Amino acid sequence: MMILRTSPPSPFGRKINIAAGVLGLSEQIRIERADTIDPADPVRQQNPLGKIPVLLLDDGTALYDSRVILEYLDHLAGGGRIIPKEPSARFAALRLQALADGILDAAILQVYEGRWRAVEIHEPKWLAHQSDKVSRALTALEADPPGLDAVPHVGQIATACALGYLDFRFDRAWRRVHSRLAAWLDQFESKIPAYAATRVAA
Amino acid sequence: MMILRTSPPSPFGRKINIAAGVLGLSEQIRIERADTIDPADPVRQQNPLGKIPVLLLDDGTALYDSRVILEYLDHLAGGGRIIPKEPSARFAALRLQALADGILDAAILQVYEGRWRAVEIHEPKWLAHQSDKVSRALTALEADPPGLDAVPHVGQIATACALGYLDFRFDRAWRRVHSRLAAWLDQFESKIPAYAATRVAA
Repeated sequence: MMILRTSPPSPFGRKINIAAGVLGLSEQIRIERADTIDPADPVRQQNPLGKIPVLLLDDGTALYDSRVILEYLDHLAGGGRIIPKEPSARFAALRLQALADGILDAAILQVYEGRWRAVEIHEPKWLAHQSDKVSRALTALEADPPGLDAVPHVGQIATACALGYLDFRFDRAWRRVHSRLAAWLDQFESKIPAYAATRVAA
Repeated sequence: MMILRTSPPSPFGRKINIAAGVLGLSEQIRIERADTIDPADPVRQQNPLGKIPVLLLDDGTALYDSRVILEYLDHLAGGGRIIPKEPSARFAALRLQALADGILDAAILQVYEGRWRAVEIHEPKWLAHQSDKVSRALTALEADPPGLDAVPHVGQIATACALGYLDFRFDRAWRRVHSRLAAWLDQFESKIPAYAATRVAA
């Protein structure tokens, strides 16, 4: 039995849970909650960066980060399931994954501004620099929404989790100006039960 | 001719230059400097996140981020050159790459504190949170330094670039307490000419 160290609100952990669901691997993974702020949590030994998700294999190996874990799950499921093998499809999926992960990084930095600093010293230029990244990425996705494969690939899974994180932390505001992308996410949710199953309340 | 949009101090861009060097692909890539702060730089169209490196292919496709570009270069070079195919070697290399990229992310956030905020409102807890990530990662690497394959893999390339960034931005201080890792980097430099060729002066 593998162990996934994560936390329910983690969008990167959510990618792993959804991938495990679509690959039929959920029964082989036990979820164990991690607290990345608690210095005593073993996550800092499992991943020196102290970040989640971390996947602990049966032999004790700890795998991270989320992209590496996703590729490992794809490998366990036979390969070519959530990461296409054909080069042009593969690199399109990997690029989309990088875009979605980048949305998350920029969104999380905005959330961390509130978590780590008093409101009167928030830096508007930094926050705008990050929110501009998210806006440009959403505009690009709205112009050309991802498809949805029968088994969603890592780019589609990451995009759904990035948009879900914006729903969770930014009050669903993005949906008002990105209606095609919102329709895409609704479609993802309707076809992939693991998406609704991993939603956390705002 | 492919075009690599990057900037000499970028440690993520340096990974691409070193990989192109060891794979014999440098002649197929023209370097074009990007300014990620200038809103008029086309990098924000090429990668909506506005981040470098971006690799522009002959057909106009823009590939990012650095991990995706590295995998693409490996593919161009026939596959299995800088990303091992054998699963246990592959996932060890990918995990090491994730660790080194995480060192860079945490180091860059410390540099950005100085670039984006007045010194009197720097947040010591945030800076310690990031520098602790770097320290733990260096301790783990010192205890078990990476090997050095005849053609270095993505984990080894990323580790060299992360340590080179610490040399560049943090005054080589890490070398005093991580002597085995410093010896490893010296070995990397002596065997991989592209490493010295891509060094920038502090």
